[in-house]
Amino acid sequence: MTDFLAACRAAIGAAHVLTDAADTAGYLTDQRGRYTGRALAVLRPADAAEVATLVQLCARHAIPLVPQGGNTGLVLGSVPDQQGNAVVLSLRRLNRIRAVDPVNNTMTVEAGCVLQHLQEQAAAVERLFPLSLAAEGSCTIGGNLSTNAGGTGVLRYGNTRELCLGLEVVTAEGEIISSLKGLRKDNTGYDLRDLFIGAEGTLGIITAAVVKLFPQPRAQLTALVALQTPAQALQLLQQAQARCGSALTGFELMSDFCLQLVCKHFPDQRLPFAHAHPQYVLLELSDNESEDHARTIFETLIGQALEQGLAQDAVIAASLAQSRALWRLRESISMAQAHEGKNIKHDISVPISRIAEFMEVTDSLVQQAAPGCRMVSFGHLGDGNLHYNVSPPVGVADADFLARQGDINRVVHDSVDRFGGSISAEHGLGALKREEILRYKSPVELRLMRAIKQALDPQQLMNPGKVL
Amino acid sequence: MTDFLAACRAAIGAAHVLTDAADTAGYLTDQRGRYTGRALAVLRPADAAEVATLVQLCARHAIPLVPQGGNTGLVLGSVPDQQGNAVVLSLRRLNRIRAVDPVNNTMTVEAGCVLQHLQEQAAAVERLFPLSLAAEGSCTIGGNLSTNAGGTGVLRYGNTRELCLGLEVVTAEGEIISSLKGLRKDNTGYDLRDLFIGAEGTLGIITAAVVKLFPQPRAQLTALVALQTPAQALQLLQQAQARCGSALTGFELMSDFCLQLVCKHFPDQRLPFAHAHPQYVLLELSDNESEDHARTIFETLIGQALEQGLAQDAVIAASLAQSRALWRLRESISMAQAHEGKNIKHDISVPISRIAEFMEVTDSLVQQAAPGCRMVSFGHLGDGNLHYNVSPPVGVADADFLARQGDINRVVHDSVDRFGGSISAEHGLGALKREEILRYKSPVELRLMRAIKQALDPQQLMNPGKVL
Repeated sequence: MTDFLAACRAAIGAAHVLTDAADTAGYLTDQRGRYTGRALAVLRPADAAEVATLVQLCARHAIPLVPQGGNTGLVLGSVPDQQGNAVVLSLRRLNRIRAVDPVNNTMTVEAGCVLQHLQEQAAAVERLFPLSLAAEGSCTIGGNLSTNAGGTGVLRYGNTRELCLGLEVVTAEGEIISSLKGLRKDNTGYDLRDLFIGAEGTLGIITAAVVKLFPQPRAQLTALVALQTPAQALQLLQQAQARCGSALTGFELMSDFCLQLVCKHFPDQRLPFAHAHPQYVLLELSDNESEDHARTIFETLIGQALEQGLAQDAVIAASLAQSRALWRLRESISMAQAHEGKNIKHDISVPISRIAEFMEVTDSLVQQAAPGCRMVSFGHLGDGNLHYNVSPPVGVADADFLARQGDINRVVHDSVDRFGGSISAEHGLGALKREEILRYKSPVELRLMRAIKQALDPQQLMNPGKVL
Repeated sequence: MTDFLAACRAAIGAAHVLTDAADTAGYLTDQRGRYTGRALAVLRPADAAEVATLVQLCARHAIPLVPQGGNTGLVLGSVPDQQGNAVVLSLRRLNRIRAVDPVNNTMTVEAGCVLQHLQEQAAAVERLFPLSLAAEGSCTIGGNLSTNAGGTGVLRYGNTRELCLGLEVVTAEGEIISSLKGLRKDNTGYDLRDLFIGAEGTLGIITAAVVKLFPQPRAQLTALVALQTPAQALQLLQQAQARCGSALTGFELMSDFCLQLVCKHFPDQRLPFAHAHPQYVLLELSDNESEDHARTIFETLIGQALEQGLAQDAVIAASLAQSRALWRLRESISMAQAHEGKNIKHDISVPISRIAEFMEVTDSLVQQAAPGCRMVSFGHLGDGNLHYNVSPPVGVADADFLARQGDINRVVHDSVDRFGGSISAEHGLGALKREEILRYKSPVELRLMRAIKQALDPQQLMNPGKVL
């Protein structure tokens, strides 16, 4: 072990091999503060070559390694387990933007770049990098790729997978694969890129990527629509897509209880309506012409929905400030829920056409299993993806509630399965859902996944205990 | 062998096990008529269960199998080799549309469905299935998926890979994986889907898929713009993308010589300009409002290009008939080139920002290698993808010209490689480019590809001699 650490120090400099508890603490606990693992050391290489050297050292000494980006994941995918025999390999120092090519509409970036920084760099050349999610101020693109992150832009731009044209990866043997050509079309063999994307660091370590850029829309306009039911939200989605096509770049559903929590815990925020409604939809339109043009489209669309009785009330943002205020309502839900106390999260998806029925049926099943529970349901309706979270009944202690977590997970996930859905839409499996997935994935798929793991990481050192 | 064929007959009915030369001929020769392979038999199963049974029989008797859809591929990926020990497994009888869900914007289709039929079925529910390519009247979606086909809609909608939400696959062991949930988001383990897509049947057999549908645009408008150089076409592309965003659904470059060939071999077609220009771009705009709206956008965009001297002349289609006539010019190039005589095809891509420089440099290198050659360069400029084809000098015999194929391939592919491009943008590797790719792909990538092949098809029976 001393040999191994000495070799690491020689490879990347002693200052970047952290072993003191005070230095490593931030790397060992997950973002929600629910789990703290143990590690031999935290290694902070500066570039892909140093990553490759460290992986070779790990292979030689049979040391498991846990790749880590911004450590903002929600499924314990980026923290080590309790054995203490692994190293955390932090990619944060790999934070260079290697190239920006506005004509090719691409940007070549290292894994440790923070997402928000990439959005800003794209904007600096009048382009859009559309990946956007709550943790964008601290998550890294390497983590986004490794978990195939979703977010609010998926409706129009797809998941992180769809935003990537190529990767640089350090394999489990410590070799570097560089596929950073930035091509829109390349049919020359197996799609290794998409195998590493979403593999949560269990097949290799992503060190850089070419990501897609898009033209910046001339105007973005936001509206908040009040409705009675998720089924009506679904109808509105269809009408909005028929009218706006790909200009519809956001469609987020939020229940009244979600926004009640926001207004309770963030008193500076308030709903722009005279009274409450059961459901709300936040729409975003990205227009290539002008704000006026976008406004006309929204007025027609929402005007019709109000006439039809589909919508009960609506507000179209009159200014950028109001638009930001509407998005803040949506973005504050997770934090408001955390302020309210412990809760049980489910990041699920079902076919879009079944989402209203799913909510009706599953709400009722959860109430049977845990009477009085309060549903904090919100999310990306246009992607069939809900954050279907459960807060305890008023007056029930956190510990008593969390003791029921297994039962409630089972009720929700079994229902998701019956509706042909997924128990992890955008967060991944990590260590948290690794056992759970065995119940829902077919034996043949699991066997193929294990065969691929064995083929690419025969020593089983890459992020052990995650995914599989 | 008799045992094997008897078992096949028992499994799928004697009428669907073809062994007579007259019956099998159409399955053994490639689309361009350049290669005829040999096979034990052609098997025509009716559904995924029969495919699974046949694959199990092949595994048991160690019989290699060549999956085949519409057999329209251009790289000898769907025909057997000369050994005669393989069977062709035709998927054409798997031609049911299992489900259409306009709310989920998905369609569940079997591998043998002809692409044009899927476009029509989508239109019947007022949706768009945007995959579109020259062979759409006879190619099958299974083949499109197995080769990750491109086509004219990639600029806006992506390759076939981006249009697929899930697959049903028969593995090399004859088991069925069914992932036909139709989810937009599902992060529960390795991305097996994208491994089978583009694998050209070497890892398993795609028997069904869920494909994405899109809202139908209200209007589509086409324009043809005459320019001096590919560099100007690139400038026009940027201006068009900045103005139209994702409404720009087509951007095809064609050299004057391409359209000369079309007008020569299809005398009913003609250019809508008074005289010839060196290059032409076909633009397509898909509008969510109206044809008038689209026309205004095109008039502004193209008007500016004419004023700037970027464009020399232009015509915006005044009717659907004229729009079709413009597209026919583009779509007739391949056929016109075939009528002109033998030619050497290159399906290549480079970063979009380098395409003009690539053409200038490579045109000159080809002229040095084969003076007098005539370049038939056209393709999907917006994707960086050119069909960079070479016709012989006037008066040179086909056989003499084809004898130079290896040299000319080398000149073009080496240049593609220097420009950071791909030697197979949308056609795949098949048997044709299997050796060639060894020169351009890194040893690490080739090693990983072989490891995956070994893991998923340890008997090496799935489409042997293709890709790897």
